[in-house]
Amino acid sequence: MAALLHEGTAYPAGSRVLEVGCGIGAQTAHLVASSPGARIVAVDVNEASLGQARARLAADSPDAEVEWHCADLFDLPFSDASFDHLFVCFVLEHLPDPQRALLELRRLLRPGGTVTAIEGDHGSVLLHPDSAHARAAIDCQVQLQSLAGGDAHIGRRLQPLLAEAGYDGITVQARPVYVDQNRPELVEGFTRNTFIAMIESVGSDALAAGLTTSADWRRGVADLHRVAEAGGTFHYTFFKALAAKLP
Amino acid sequence: MAALLHEGTAYPAGSRVLEVGCGIGAQTAHLVASSPGARIVAVDVNEASLGQARARLAADSPDAEVEWHCADLFDLPFSDASFDHLFVCFVLEHLPDPQRALLELRRLLRPGGTVTAIEGDHGSVLLHPDSAHARAAIDCQVQLQSLAGGDAHIGRRLQPLLAEAGYDGITVQARPVYVDQNRPELVEGFTRNTFIAMIESVGSDALAAGLTTSADWRRGVADLHRVAEAGGTFHYTFFKALAAKLP
Repeated sequence: MAALLHEGTAYPAGSRVLEVGCGIGAQTAHLVASSPGARIVAVDVNEASLGQARARLAADSPDAEVEWHCADLFDLPFSDASFDHLFVCFVLEHLPDPQRALLELRRLLRPGGTVTAIEGDHGSVLLHPDSAHARAAIDCQVQLQSLAGGDAHIGRRLQPLLAEAGYDGITVQARPVYVDQNRPELVEGFTRNTFIAMIESVGSDALAAGLTTSADWRRGVADLHRVAEAGGTFHYTFFKALAAKLP
Repeated sequence: MAALLHEGTAYPAGSRVLEVGCGIGAQTAHLVASSPGARIVAVDVNEASLGQARARLAADSPDAEVEWHCADLFDLPFSDASFDHLFVCFVLEHLPDPQRALLELRRLLRPGGTVTAIEGDHGSVLLHPDSAHARAAIDCQVQLQSLAGGDAHIGRRLQPLLAEAGYDGITVQARPVYVDQNRPELVEGFTRNTFIAMIESVGSDALAAGLTTSADWRRGVADLHRVAEAGGTFHYTFFKALAAKLP
């Protein structure tokens, strides 16, 4: 999974890289590993997540020197043009105005610098066996994210978002994850423990919001688990965009 | 597009390769180009299509020696184990019983030989701007294919179909096509002239079958065309499977 998302991303030693919305440091760990010598600055608005990220990196990559900041994306404590590269992974999907965020971040980028944005798109889910119940359970997550101001279908929008925020040289790649019983590590690591776990985690919120019933939810989750069994298949597409601020 | 589908497929000189359901020869031309020296045998049940395929190859690849047969997939005029490789592209999606077809084809394969199967999956379509009308138009094609005994969502099923037909060493790859305004040749060649053209071609059948109304259809097709304009994006995933008959 990390290879899928991070392939092609390696920043030169000495370059200053801002990771926006580092959360608990899941991607920070990979940035540090794939770009030794780059000066990684990691920002998150959530103090608790940032603490977990610091602890994680201290344990897993004790030699890495990451600069940590607790700050809001729209009020970042950095000067204009003070970064060579921006890395924004699974962040835009949560924002009510991702275009404004990209515009604001562009200010921090030196001319000639790049932004890398990675997002999923829940519309890309393919299930076998297919199940309207399972798709309804997934749609609960989509609706909850929408109610919270986000967009679980943002992957397909990266190019227009970046273009409208003034970036140039935009290239977007679709990076699919396809899983069947012949890839048992992905059945466990992605289908079950990433995707299905994420859907299962919103069950109580979906019930509280009246988006489903207990019976429908149980049926949907049970059907989801069938795609992780022998004869089942699962497919999801991530989108990875690279764009530049023209010199 | 051809590169996307055919990448990784090249048969050794002297090997005997059966292309099942060659249609008008669209893939035959690529097989011949990427596997010079292989002995390509192309079969289709439709005499008129086969005639077009022969004419196409005679014009485009006059040096290629392709053996042509008009025959039904379930009554092929070949002995057991007489082929080294099978190539089956955009055929299984049309068959009421694709598993039986794969089982029948396996008979023709020598032990140690391989089958390559390529199919799309209309469930993988992502549209931006998204449109329920456009998705309804696509669904008309899915329903018509289903009424004709086929499955426009077969891509996700290749692994279980091959496994149940007795093949081994099955690997399936998702091969996505992502298109935005920065890939103008794909906007024309794939989004407009392949995908949208295919959907548009079933309009009268969809109306005749009562699957849509004239107004809904026009709206759906108009919305589909918006994804091919500036700021629009389109995504589709093909699935390519490779499997073997154990020695």
